[in-house]
Amino acid sequence: MARKTGSHSEITGPRVRAEAQRLFARHGFAAVSMRQIAAAVGVQAGALYLYTPDKETLLFQLLETHMKELLAAWQAEPRGQGPLEALEAFVRFHIRYNGERPEVVFLSYMELRNLGPENFAAIEALRRAYETELETILKAGQAAGMILVPDTKLATMAIIAMLTGVNTWFREGGRLGRAAVEDIYWDMVRKAVGA
Amino acid sequence: MARKTGSHSEITGPRVRAEAQRLFARHGFAAVSMRQIAAAVGVQAGALYLYTPDKETLLFQLLETHMKELLAAWQAEPRGQGPLEALEAFVRFHIRYNGERPEVVFLSYMELRNLGPENFAAIEALRRAYETELETILKAGQAAGMILVPDTKLATMAIIAMLTGVNTWFREGGRLGRAAVEDIYWDMVRKAVGA
Repeated sequence: MARKTGSHSEITGPRVRAEAQRLFARHGFAAVSMRQIAAAVGVQAGALYLYTPDKETLLFQLLETHMKELLAAWQAEPRGQGPLEALEAFVRFHIRYNGERPEVVFLSYMELRNLGPENFAAIEALRRAYETELETILKAGQAAGMILVPDTKLATMAIIAMLTGVNTWFREGGRLGRAAVEDIYWDMVRKAVGA
Repeated sequence: MARKTGSHSEITGPRVRAEAQRLFARHGFAAVSMRQIAAAVGVQAGALYLYTPDKETLLFQLLETHMKELLAAWQAEPRGQGPLEALEAFVRFHIRYNGERPEVVFLSYMELRNLGPENFAAIEALRRAYETELETILKAGQAAGMILVPDTKLATMAIIAMLTGVNTWFREGGRLGRAAVEDIYWDMVRKAVGA
């Protein structure tokens, strides 16, 4: 346990996260042991503790990394000028970004119950920051008279749930491609907010 | 194991389901043992096997019972005359019915991975039957020129995801009561389908 080195954790870190994510999504957090994760990575269980102090921290790191990357990716997303362009960009971004990461998105909703109060609060704060991105767009649209919703907070929650729901049914090679799905959801969201 | 009697399983059945549901929702299906469920019910593990052959069957029975009761409750729900009245009834029913059963709704989405192919297919068929109820309303509205959506199947999935999402944020005693939430979601759904 004493010979922790930067290079060691740099090599195993991404693999530990990838295997933990895969195993948690498949079997559930509580059913997966550190020993199983170590075996999947191909290291001794002891080596895993060089990377993370415990299993909950590993889950927390997965969810925190996901939320931070989601926020950074949205910040970097091109989004045109006005509130409607921004709303369309958000709709298409959310479907695409989450569609490419079904495992960690699933864990983000499902395994929050396994975080302690502090870790839970940290993930909730990141989630709220992401929701605020959308709500800010809706408020700007409302102020500009381009959007009409009875409650911007509920509209935010409704839109995010609707878009994340694509992950539950979308299958590559199905009746509709991703671009068509984005178009159809954008049509529904636009109408839902009275634009 | 041989002295299975009707009266015995009638007494323990609902309690077994209630405790299994609570434990699965809290810890995850894979992390809960039959022994733990038996202890929560207050019986020997052996007695549990009078009621169910294994843990997966118990999960399946929970989800199947939920879906069948959901379908029956919707069939019994008053819904006025036309497609828009039926759509409004569906929106309010779905929010209310699922809001009253957060544990089993959570399990219905999260623990499908733990069903074998046959049990999975049975739950999927029930879920599809419920989705078809909504899609039939949307198609009737579309045919009557009262609704305009680019794709009734996707509109069905979008609406159900949006409505089920209420369970992730609604808290009794929060800023809005259930009735206000129903009103706001009905407003958004109505607009989303161009009505």
